[in-house]
Amino acid sequence: MQLTSLIPPQVNLADGCFTAPDVQHKSTLLGSLAGIFADHHSWQAMPAEFAVYSVEMLPFALQEGELLVGTTHLQPGKVGNEFFMTRGHFHQRREQAEFYFGLRGSGLLLLQHQGGDCTLEQVFTGSVHHIPPFTAHRLINTGDHILSALAVWSAIAGHDYSALQPQGFKLRIFADGAGWRAEAQYE
Amino acid sequence: MQLTSLIPPQVNLADGCFTAPDVQHKSTLLGSLAGIFADHHSWQAMPAEFAVYSVEMLPFALQEGELLVGTTHLQPGKVGNEFFMTRGHFHQRREQAEFYFGLRGSGLLLLQHQGGDCTLEQVFTGSVHHIPPFTAHRLINTGDHILSALAVWSAIAGHDYSALQPQGFKLRIFADGAGWRAEAQYE
Repeated sequence: MQLTSLIPPQVNLADGCFTAPDVQHKSTLLGSLAGIFADHHSWQAMPAEFAVYSVEMLPFALQEGELLVGTTHLQPGKVGNEFFMTRGHFHQRREQAEFYFGLRGSGLLLLQHQGGDCTLEQVFTGSVHHIPPFTAHRLINTGDHILSALAVWSAIAGHDYSALQPQGFKLRIFADGAGWRAEAQYE
Repeated sequence: MQLTSLIPPQVNLADGCFTAPDVQHKSTLLGSLAGIFADHHSWQAMPAEFAVYSVEMLPFALQEGELLVGTTHLQPGKVGNEFFMTRGHFHQRREQAEFYFGLRGSGLLLLQHQGGDCTLEQVFTGSVHHIPPFTAHRLINTGDHILSALAVWSAIAGHDYSALQPQGFKLRIFADGAGWRAEAQYE
């Protein structure tokens, strides 16, 4: 019978960084994002080794009913005139939802339902994003600082990056003066 | 095609309070917690209408794959010498995990595995608590201020309050000087 208390993992709510003995880190390099940004020429001219975003997460068992937690840190910047963004994905298990919590920075969450409808939600400190079942999702950093969002999702959700190919998401987000504008790529 | 952005629900990361058009609130009154605290006489002498804790949550569909988000606010105080706590529960769907995030205040999370093993985790601002499958869980406020914890859990998890009856959780947490001590109720 345990009569003392344990110190659990911690997340800095100001930046989303975890403190735990076994935090996992994964970076996504610009060079791996071929075909993601509209301006292929500008993309090719940029350093392939630049980490556009990174994810840190706590490891847990990949079994039915389990949940995972992690933070995505998305750098500020643009490829040509298009803001940095994550690759974006559907869940392999399409019925599995997810929650994002904006922690720092400012940007957009692009939601694209399997039927094609798109929604843009503003991401900021304290924003709460319900990613419904059957909905692809992508973070876009429209600000000048790192955008960090905490996520909780089902361990069995998985990632499906191919379902959006070859067209990709319907909307692209470009710089427009000090702000942004969305452009539809197809109907 | 939507080319503007929506403002999503928000959670104040300093206190766990939500801002949204449809936040749901539920309070648990001291009078409804018969048999939960060890000192029945002290419990009876206290105001039955006092809200020991409240939960606020965003409403979403109760379907397979959906997730829910909410905050538990647990008042500071004691019944006799035993700290205020939530009723605690297993999930009806025992395989469903949950995450808690400590936002303010200080306390303990009592985890009791179906096999009987107990763990106490310290809850504080930024603490991250993985509640594994098959594990009952209860928050205990050992501090002088409101304890607020954000939770994300599966919509189909459900609550099972009866599985721990009639014995209840194995451990009770009592004030001990300026701190606390755990007492085992049974083996």
